[in-house]
Amino acid sequence: MIRLDFSKLDGLVPAIAQDWQTGEVLMVAFMNEESWRLTQETGIMHYWSRSRGKLWKKGESSGNLQEVKELRVDCDDDCVLARVRQIGDAACHTGYRSCFYRVAEGIGPGGAPVLRTDGRKVFDPREKYGEPR
Amino acid sequence: MIRLDFSKLDGLVPAIAQDWQTGEVLMVAFMNEESWRLTQETGIMHYWSRSRGKLWKKGESSGNLQEVKELRVDCDDDCVLARVRQIGDAACHTGYRSCFYRVAEGIGPGGAPVLRTDGRKVFDPREKYGEPR
Repeated sequence: MIRLDFSKLDGLVPAIAQDWQTGEVLMVAFMNEESWRLTQETGIMHYWSRSRGKLWKKGESSGNLQEVKELRVDCDDDCVLARVRQIGDAACHTGYRSCFYRVAEGIGPGGAPVLRTDGRKVFDPREKYGEPR
Repeated sequence: MIRLDFSKLDGLVPAIAQDWQTGEVLMVAFMNEESWRLTQETGIMHYWSRSRGKLWKKGESSGNLQEVKELRVDCDDDCVLARVRQIGDAACHTGYRSCFYRVAEGIGPGGAPVLRTDGRKVFDPREKYGEPR
């Protein structure tokens, strides 16, 4: 296993999932040492869920797994870039293909920039998860 | 200013710099609220340097600034994706265009995967910074 530096973030490193063909950034999450090991061993992306405080096999409940095509590490050994094939076509729990479906632009009331939605919605989370998300 | 959730990581959010034309992921660093504000106001990427514990205008010493072309935020408001024009053609202090110039692959002695260098070296850091990095 490639050794990473998990010391800077209390046992975690950021991990980026990027579409292996188009280069689109799908999501960013965190890995602990166990999820990094499982990702390498299984070829399926595993993260650490900060909100749930547990190992997170991405897509375990939704079926939208991420198949690893390539794993890269950065110059400081404290970040992972994974090129993946996104099963089910959507990475985001909102139903969008990418979690980054909002662009900061324009000026709204009060002079503040506004967020414009710019992304492809693949599924309706109410249908997929059975409740509003 | 778009409000982000800085509470999950002690005042920081991860920020990805991606080449605005090719989609190549150049680097990942962190932003605090001040660097996020300055990035939006100036159109130049600002981070928070964890190692130096200070605001970090990327490229301030090397000249390799990052010009913001587009800013995106993720579904949880706790991560930034910036599409940038990389001045000087290299984002990494090692002289490579991207910090992710190593691929985890193959099996080395002891059965462990090895890192293969796969990236474009743009400058020699000894010449640029005057010392080994």
